[in-house]
Amino acid sequence: MVNLDKGKGSDGLFRRRPLILVTNDDGITSPGIRELTRALVKLGDVVVIAPAGEQSAVAHSITLDDPIRAKSWSFGEDLDHVRALAIDGTPCDCIKLALHQLLHRLPDLVVSGINRGSNTAINVIYSGTISAATESSIYGIDSIAVSLDAKEPDADYRPAAKYAGMIAQKVLRSHLPRGVLLSVNVPMIPEDEIKGIVVTRQARSRWQEGFLERIDPANRAYYWYRGTLNILDEGADTDIHVLENGYVSITPLQHDRTAYGCLEVLSTWSWKESPI
Amino acid sequence: MVNLDKGKGSDGLFRRRPLILVTNDDGITSPGIRELTRALVKLGDVVVIAPAGEQSAVAHSITLDDPIRAKSWSFGEDLDHVRALAIDGTPCDCIKLALHQLLHRLPDLVVSGINRGSNTAINVIYSGTISAATESSIYGIDSIAVSLDAKEPDADYRPAAKYAGMIAQKVLRSHLPRGVLLSVNVPMIPEDEIKGIVVTRQARSRWQEGFLERIDPANRAYYWYRGTLNILDEGADTDIHVLENGYVSITPLQHDRTAYGCLEVLSTWSWKESPI
Repeated sequence: MVNLDKGKGSDGLFRRRPLILVTNDDGITSPGIRELTRALVKLGDVVVIAPAGEQSAVAHSITLDDPIRAKSWSFGEDLDHVRALAIDGTPCDCIKLALHQLLHRLPDLVVSGINRGSNTAINVIYSGTISAATESSIYGIDSIAVSLDAKEPDADYRPAAKYAGMIAQKVLRSHLPRGVLLSVNVPMIPEDEIKGIVVTRQARSRWQEGFLERIDPANRAYYWYRGTLNILDEGADTDIHVLENGYVSITPLQHDRTAYGCLEVLSTWSWKESPI
Repeated sequence: MVNLDKGKGSDGLFRRRPLILVTNDDGITSPGIRELTRALVKLGDVVVIAPAGEQSAVAHSITLDDPIRAKSWSFGEDLDHVRALAIDGTPCDCIKLALHQLLHRLPDLVVSGINRGSNTAINVIYSGTISAATESSIYGIDSIAVSLDAKEPDADYRPAAKYAGMIAQKVLRSHLPRGVLLSVNVPMIPEDEIKGIVVTRQARSRWQEGFLERIDPANRAYYWYRGTLNILDEGADTDIHVLENGYVSITPLQHDRTAYGCLEVLSTWSWKESPI
């Protein structure tokens, strides 16, 4: 049985120091989660419960029809003492399993990331990194998703980890409004060139897909996804604008998707006629 | 090559009748999508592009690293003339592939469903049915997700299909506000007992998970997901309340998740101190 709150005489420790749960969608072996963990151990007791393999673009998927396994994991080096589990599931599975099975108490903070690649604009909806933090926010836990605007595999996650630590510290002190999480995006520039932090909204955007069609030996078509992000928004207050101009963007997100602004107008539609 | 707008001399047909794209997350073989299609062929030219197999709880997942296949499908019987494709991907994949590869023009309406089981409250976030309609709404297409509050496999989808047809007709005429889709939930009661339609918001709720732990022959733990939905909301204007009281609920949803109400207060936090 895996139970992270037991053993090592750590009972009582959590009463003094905040308990921080770390996860991601790139998988527990990714450099982003390692640097994030390194930054957060300064702030509290860190437990890492993250997917065993890459789970990008899985959004808010959960595993219902298969069992989920959890295996012990060690980061080694200076993080050898951090308790960690690799889960063969989605980021949301990790949060659900952590909160309801593996941890003895709810964490004070969940931080998801550091994602390889930004999660701005419409990408919020596809991101497993953000979905993990969304899931914990549903349970009233302060939650942060952190993404680095990097493409290359050997990107330096240390500046992003520093900002993640600073923002985590602030959230631990001040707490977020109910039902709200933060999505943090860090530009891929040297630390001393980062100009500061700006609170932003999601830029309006959509992917312009252009599937590649291929034909298999039996002459049947199949398709490879590829796309380009079209920004439909010229606002200076958007996540994308701010990130491109060298700032860290913080976008507050909510999990309630009700379009409150439309409730009134839709109620005025006549819904009384008979079904066809 | 699969191209649904070609052949059968249908060119020009779409200029006169609306083009309606139908998808779901239960798979193209499910009874819900068949009844939905049957209701919608009265309103326009229907094309069905839906997952080959069940894709429940996949949320907004997309397939990036594998190719996607599309196979011709026939509903047979009275729906033999409806052009249909089974996709080995997620509901979102279906929408993306349809809009950007398979259809010659954007549809006038997308209807996703009829889902087996309601999609109310926090379940909006996990639902593949709603994600499909969300995806098309991003492209400015009027979009509706329809779910029946049914558990049994032999549920009667006809009343829900009638309401879906009526609501679709209204949306084709009046159009939805930009960036907004409708999530329709129909109660599992005889048609003449349905009291009407109410515009609602998502009820505040969360799943109370209770994973089942099992031990494999090698003495390793694994976990089965199970949970109970806890409603944290006593409002009479919620999707769940209305559905339980015998009404069809219509919840307008948005894909922008920015918590606009928090932008101001978060901007007042001091973000200027150095990272730790």
